[in-house]
Amino acid sequence: MQVQIPKKNLNEALGMLERIVPARSSNAALTQLKVAVTPRGLALSGTNLEIDIEYSLEAQIANGQDFVVPAQLFAQITKALSGELVELHLNGSELTVASGGSTFKVQTGDLSAYPELQFPSETHITLDARELSKSLTSVRYAAAAEEFRAIFRGVQLELNPTSSRVVATDGFRLAYRNFAASSTTEARKLVIPARNADELIRVLKDGEVRLTISQGTLSVATDKVRINAKLMDGELPDYARVIPATSSVTLAVSAGALREAVARVAVVADKSSNNKVELIVAGGKLQLVAESDFGRAQDVLDVVQHGSEPAITVGFRAKQLTEALSPIEGEVLIGLGLNAPAKFTAESDTGYLAIVNPLRV
Amino acid sequence: MQVQIPKKNLNEALGMLERIVPARSSNAALTQLKVAVTPRGLALSGTNLEIDIEYSLEAQIANGQDFVVPAQLFAQITKALSGELVELHLNGSELTVASGGSTFKVQTGDLSAYPELQFPSETHITLDARELSKSLTSVRYAAAAEEFRAIFRGVQLELNPTSSRVVATDGFRLAYRNFAASSTTEARKLVIPARNADELIRVLKDGEVRLTISQGTLSVATDKVRINAKLMDGELPDYARVIPATSSVTLAVSAGALREAVARVAVVADKSSNNKVELIVAGGKLQLVAESDFGRAQDVLDVVQHGSEPAITVGFRAKQLTEALSPIEGEVLIGLGLNAPAKFTAESDTGYLAIVNPLRV
Repeated sequence: MQVQIPKKNLNEALGMLERIVPARSSNAALTQLKVAVTPRGLALSGTNLEIDIEYSLEAQIANGQDFVVPAQLFAQITKALSGELVELHLNGSELTVASGGSTFKVQTGDLSAYPELQFPSETHITLDARELSKSLTSVRYAAAAEEFRAIFRGVQLELNPTSSRVVATDGFRLAYRNFAASSTTEARKLVIPARNADELIRVLKDGEVRLTISQGTLSVATDKVRINAKLMDGELPDYARVIPATSSVTLAVSAGALREAVARVAVVADKSSNNKVELIVAGGKLQLVAESDFGRAQDVLDVVQHGSEPAITVGFRAKQLTEALSPIEGEVLIGLGLNAPAKFTAESDTGYLAIVNPLRV
Repeated sequence: MQVQIPKKNLNEALGMLERIVPARSSNAALTQLKVAVTPRGLALSGTNLEIDIEYSLEAQIANGQDFVVPAQLFAQITKALSGELVELHLNGSELTVASGGSTFKVQTGDLSAYPELQFPSETHITLDARELSKSLTSVRYAAAAEEFRAIFRGVQLELNPTSSRVVATDGFRLAYRNFAASSTTEARKLVIPARNADELIRVLKDGEVRLTISQGTLSVATDKVRINAKLMDGELPDYARVIPATSSVTLAVSAGALREAVARVAVVADKSSNNKVELIVAGGKLQLVAESDFGRAQDVLDVVQHGSEPAITVGFRAKQLTEALSPIEGEVLIGLGLNAPAKFTAESDTGYLAIVNPLRV
C-alpha cells in the first residue's frame, strides 16, 4: 500500500485523535488508531470507549489496505516531519512514514483486535454547527467538576422544532444559551458528559451538523468528522424555577471592563471566604470591594442603573462572576435582588442567560 | 508619604523581585520587600538569603519614608492595576496603592525586623553586561541539575586581564564561552550557583556591569540594579584535559537544520537507552538514526566533511546534542572521534565550545 497525503491535513486529524486515544490502556488495542481506506481517501478513527471519532481525509492511494498503528507515536512522528507531503508505505506489518529527508519505520498493530466502530448512516436531526459549538462553549463552565449528582457533570441539549437550547448547572449557578431551531419534529433532551462536549466544541466549526440519537449515544457527523459520544442517563432537574422573574436593581455595564475590575480586586480577596467580591450599586456607580487579612481593594465603574431600589450590595465568588461574564461581548445586563440569584444577560447575544447565587452576607 | 511612579517601571522591578522573594518562609520578614527612599527615587529590595536584589526607580516623592510590604501581594496588585501612573500613600502602617479607578489598601510589615542588605560601593572589576549575560546563557545548560559533587551545579566565571570565560560541566559534558577581557589585573575563578546565574541572566541587559568579590559573595551592579549573589566554595576540576586536540572526522552543517533533524528522529528514540541518536558520517552526508521497540527513524543532511577517516558512527543522548547546539546560530563545526568526546564550535561565535561524551555503542 502507498499513500500520499498533505502533512497539514494529516496533522489536523491526528491532533484531534491523539487527544482522545489513551496513551496507555489495559486493552492495548485502544492505544492504536485505525487507518482505513475509503472511496474518498483515508478514514482515521480512534476511541476511548466514551467517545469515538473518525476523521476523513482526501489522499492518493495505491493498493489500499487497512491497518492500525500506535496513535501517540504516529501523531508525534507526523508532527516532527519536515516536508509538506507525507508518504506512507505499508510493507507486511511495517509502516514507513517518509517526508522531506526523514524516514520513519513503525510496527503496525493487530487489526483484528481493534474494536469495530459503527457510525450511523441515517440522520435524525440537522443543526447549525457553529451555533451548537458556540452554545456549548458559552455554558460549559457552569457544569460541575465534581458533584454529588452525576447529572450536573453534563451539558443538556434541548432540541425543539422552534428553538434549541444548551444548559449547564452545578446546582449553585446556571447558564443556558438558546440558538437556532433544529429540524426535529418532537422535543428531546440529551445530557452530554462535559468532556465529550469539549471534544464536540473542538471538532464543530461550520456548516451543517447531522445528529443521530440511539441507545444512550449521540452521533454527530459533519463533512469531515463522525463522532459517537456517550450520553448520561436522565436529565437536569427543573431549572426554570431558579430564574428570578424580577430584579430590584438592574444595571448595564461593559462586560469586559467588569471582568477586568473583578480580576483586579480579586487579588486581595480572602480565599477562606470563597474569594468574595462585593458589588455595591448606588447612584449610577458600581463599586467592587474585596477584603482579606492582607488588605482591601476597591474599584469603581460607571453604570446605567434602573429598578425599584435606589441601592444594593451583593457578594459573589470572584470566579463565578468572571465565568458568568466570560461569553459576553459588549454590554452585560445584570439583575440583582437582596438574597436572590443574580441574572446576567447579554445585549448582543440575546440567547445567553446566566444565573449566579450570591454569597450570604 | 506620597509617591507617583509609572506602573511599567514598578512592574519591571517587582517582576524581578517576586521571582526571588519567597512566598512563605519560617522567617516572615523574608516574604517582604523593602521600599526605601533614595536621592533618585525609590530602591526596592528583596532577598532569599542566596541572592539579594535591589532595584532603583525614579519616582516623585513627598514626605519620604521607608517601609516593607508583602512582596507577592504587592507585585500582584501592581500587575492588576488599570492606570499608567501608580500613586502610593503611606498612612501609619496602611499603604494605599491607587491607579485608574482602583484603590488597594495593604498593611505594611515590620521594618525593624527586615534584614539589612549591604551592597558594596567600591568596584573591583568592570565587564560588558551583554557579553557576560550571553556567555552565562550559552553554557548554563551544561551545569548539573543533581550531582554527587555540588560544584557541578555552578557556573564558573574566570576573569583574566586578557580574556574572560564562563564554564559549566556536569562531569559528562562541558560548555564554555570566552568573551571580552575584564578590567581585572589578577586572574580569578568564581563559581556561581546555577540558580543565581539564572537571575544574573535576567537582570543583565546592556551597558557596563561592575563586579565586587568579597567573602564568598559576588556583588554585581548596573545603573538600575545591585545584586549580591552567594558563591560556591572551590572551583571546577581541570577540564582542559577532556577537550580533544584532534578529531578523526570533522563536519560543518547548519546548526538549526541539525537541531531539527535530532528533534525529529528523537521521537522514536528508546528512552531505556538514553534516547540515543546515532550520527553516521560518510561521503559528505550526515545520517541520523534512532531506534526503539516501536520503530526506527532516519534523517539525512548534506555536510562538508574533512578528516583522516572516511566514515564514522557515534551515538549521543538526543538532549545533549540539542543542548550543545542550542547557543549556535549559523554553521556548527563538529569534531568526532571513535570513543572520543565530540567537540562543537560555532563558525559565527568563536568564543563558544561544547564537549559531549558519546554513548558506548
